Amino acid sequence: MEKIREVINRIRPIQQSAYEDVKKRLNNLTKPAESLGRLEELAQRYIAIKGDNNAKLEKKVIFTFAGDHGVADEGVSAFPREVTAQMVLNFLHGGAGVNVLARHVGAEVVVVDIGVDYDFKQSDGLVIRKIARGTRNMLKEPAMTYKEAIRGMKTGIEIAEEWSQRADIVGTGDMGIGNTTPSSAIVSVLTGEPVENVTGMGTGITHDTFKRKIDIIKEAIKINKPNPLDPIDVLSKVGGFEIAGIAGLILGAASKNIPVVVDGFISGASALIALRLQPAVRDYIFTSHLSVERGHKVIIEKLGTNALLDLNLRLGEGTGAALGIGLVEAGFKILTQMATFDNAGVSTKAPSPIYG
Amino acid sequence: MEKIREVINRIRPIQQSAYEDVKKRLNNLTKPAESLGRLEELAQRYIAIKGDNNAKLEKKVIFTFAGDHGVADEGVSAFPREVTAQMVLNFLHGGAGVNVLARHVGAEVVVVDIGVDYDFKQSDGLVIRKIARGTRNMLKEPAMTYKEAIRGMKTGIEIAEEWSQRADIVGTGDMGIGNTTPSSAIVSVLTGEPVENVTGMGTGITHDTFKRKIDIIKEAIKINKPNPLDPIDVLSKVGGFEIAGIAGLILGAASKNIPVVVDGFISGASALIALRLQPAVRDYIFTSHLSVERGHKVIIEKLGTNALLDLNLRLGEGTGAALGIGLVEAGFKILTQMATFDNAGVSTKAPSPIYG
Repeated sequence: MEKIREVINRIRPIQQSAYEDVKKRLNNLTKPAESLGRLEELAQRYIAIKGDNNAKLEKKVIFTFAGDHGVADEGVSAFPREVTAQMVLNFLHGGAGVNVLARHVGAEVVVVDIGVDYDFKQSDGLVIRKIARGTRNMLKEPAMTYKEAIRGMKTGIEIAEEWSQRADIVGTGDMGIGNTTPSSAIVSVLTGEPVENVTGMGTGITHDTFKRKIDIIKEAIKINKPNPLDPIDVLSKVGGFEIAGIAGLILGAASKNIPVVVDGFISGASALIALRLQPAVRDYIFTSHLSVERGHKVIIEKLGTNALLDLNLRLGEGTGAALGIGLVEAGFKILTQMATFDNAGVSTKAPSPIYG
Repeated sequence: MEKIREVINRIRPIQQSAYEDVKKRLNNLTKPAESLGRLEELAQRYIAIKGDNNAKLEKKVIFTFAGDHGVADEGVSAFPREVTAQMVLNFLHGGAGVNVLARHVGAEVVVVDIGVDYDFKQSDGLVIRKIARGTRNMLKEPAMTYKEAIRGMKTGIEIAEEWSQRADIVGTGDMGIGNTTPSSAIVSVLTGEPVENVTGMGTGITHDTFKRKIDIIKEAIKINKPNPLDPIDVLSKVGGFEIAGIAGLILGAASKNIPVVVDGFISGASALIALRLQPAVRDYIFTSHLSVERGHKVIIEKLGTNALLDLNLRLGEGTGAALGIGLVEAGFKILTQMATFDNAGVSTKAPSPIYG
C-alpha cells in the first residue's frame, strides 16, 4: 500500500499553461487555426503530459494483462475458461486482434500473465507475474484478498516503471474469460448505477445467460459488501487480477509522465479505480473508443472525456487502444512534421476577430 | 457527356452475397463474432467492392484536386486567394496536413491542378490538368459552363482510370480558397435544405463575413437558377473545378471497383453529385469523418452511411480521407492477418443461440 500511496502522490494535474504553449505552435502551422480539431488536442495533451516540448513519440507498447476468474465457473461467458490461456498463446504467436492492430500502428504487444490458470513457458513478449491461478468465485467469497489486489496493482505500477525509459506511450489491454462480469460489478459499486445499467452481453451470450449474469453480479455485491469509498476493497472483492494490473499500469504511467491510451470496458473499470484513487490521473488518460458494452458510457462520463473512436468494438485485448495510439501519433506528427506559414511561404489570414 | 454516361452505366450495386462470404471468414477468426464491429464491416465492404477474395490492400493514393474560385473575390474566405497556389506548393514539398497524415497511413498524395490561378512547373506528385485559372464569380454568372463542368468530371474519371491498375484504394481531397461557398450552394440546391442549414464557418471567418457568405450563396442560386434535377447543371453554375474533379474521381473509382474514401465537406458535395448521377455509387464510398462544417451532416444522411470518425476536423485536403484509409486498412488486416480458431487452437464457444 505504501508503494501505491507514493505513486498516487507523485501524480500532478497538468497545468493549463502547458497546453497553451503547444497551441501557439499549432497555430503557426499551415492550416486554419484549430482546423484539425481533436488531433490538435491530442498533440497538446501528449506534449503537456511529457512536460517536454521536444518529446518524441517513437516507442509504443500495449500491455495486455491476462487473468482467470472464479466466477467463470458460473457460466457467465459464452466461451470456456481455458480460452484465456489459449488466447495468451495466440497473442504470443501474433495471431490475435490486438497483434494485428498493434502491428498496424507500429506498437509492440507485451502480455502480462498476472493470474492465468495455466503455466506458461518463458517466451518473448510474455511477462510472467502470476499472483494466483485465477481469482476465487466472487459469488461465494471475495475474488481476491485485499493484499492480492494490492499486489496486482503493484505489478502494474512496476511494469510501468520498468518500461518508463523505453516506452513513449503505453496502451492497456485485457484478456480474461468472464471479465466483463467483475468489471460491471466494479462500475456499479463505484458509480452507484444499478447493475442493469452497466452490464452488457460480453462476448455474445444468450438472453438467459445475460439475465443470470445480472443476478450473479447483484448477488456477489450483496454477499461481499464492497465499500464504494475504498476502490481497492471493491477491486479485491468483485474484481480481477488483470483489472488490478491495468489500474496499476495507469497510475504508474501517469506518475512517470507517460501518456496512457485506455482500451474499452475492462480497462475502463481499471481506469475508474485509478481515478477514484487519484482524480488527476484523468489528465494522463486518452480514451480510445466507446465500447458496445453498455457500462462503458458511464465510465467515460466519469473520466470526463470523449472517446476518440466509436466503431462498435467489444473485443478488448487492447485492440481499441492500438487504434487510439495511432490517432495520438497522428496528432503528434501534425505538430512535429507540418510546415509553418513562414517556412512554407503561405499567406496567413488577415488579422480579424475569428468567429469559428 | 458520353464518357460520363458510360462510366455511370458501368457502376453496379454490390450484391448482399458478397458481404456474406466475407462474414463467414471473419467468424472463423479468434474473436467473438462481430466483436470488431465496424472494422469488420470495412473489411467486408472492401472485399465486396473488389469482387475478389484475394484482393490486396497495398497501394493507397489520395488525390487532392486544387482549383480557384471567382467567388473568392467577394471575401467569403478568411484567407486570400493566392493561398490555393501556395498550398499546392506546400503539398508538393510535403509540409501540409494531408502530407503528414498520408505518410502516417502509408499513402501517396497526388495533387491535381484542375483550375488553380497559377502556372506550376512540372513536378513529382503534381498532375496538371488545368481547365481554367479558376471559376468565374458565381455571384455574377455561372461559375463554369456546362462543358467545363463535364470536362472537370471527365478529368477525375480519367485519373481514376489511369490509376486503376496501380491504386488498391483511393482517397479524395480538395484545395481551393473559397470552396466551402460553392459546396454549400450545391448541397442546398441538391437537397432542398435552406442555405443557412448547410453553411458553416469555413476556415474561420468572422460573424459578419458568415452572414455575407449566406447572402452571397442565396443570391448566386437566385441569379443562376441551377436545376436541382440536373446535378451537372448545379455543378456548373454554383460549383468548382476541384468539386467536379472529385465527383469524377468517385464515379471513375466505383466503375473500376476501387474503394474510395471520401474526405469532408467539399468532397462530400462532390459525392452528392456522384450519388445523384448514380445512386449505386454509395456502395463504393467510405465516409471518413464528420466535418465541423454544418452541411456535412446533411450529405452523410443522403449517402446513408455513418462517418468513421468524428474528430472536429475541418481542414479538407484529404486529411480525413487519410485517417479513414488507415481504418479501412485496419479492417482489411483483421480479415487477412488474424489466426482462425482452428489454426490457433482456441476453443470456440458452445453452439447456442447468440443474443448479442
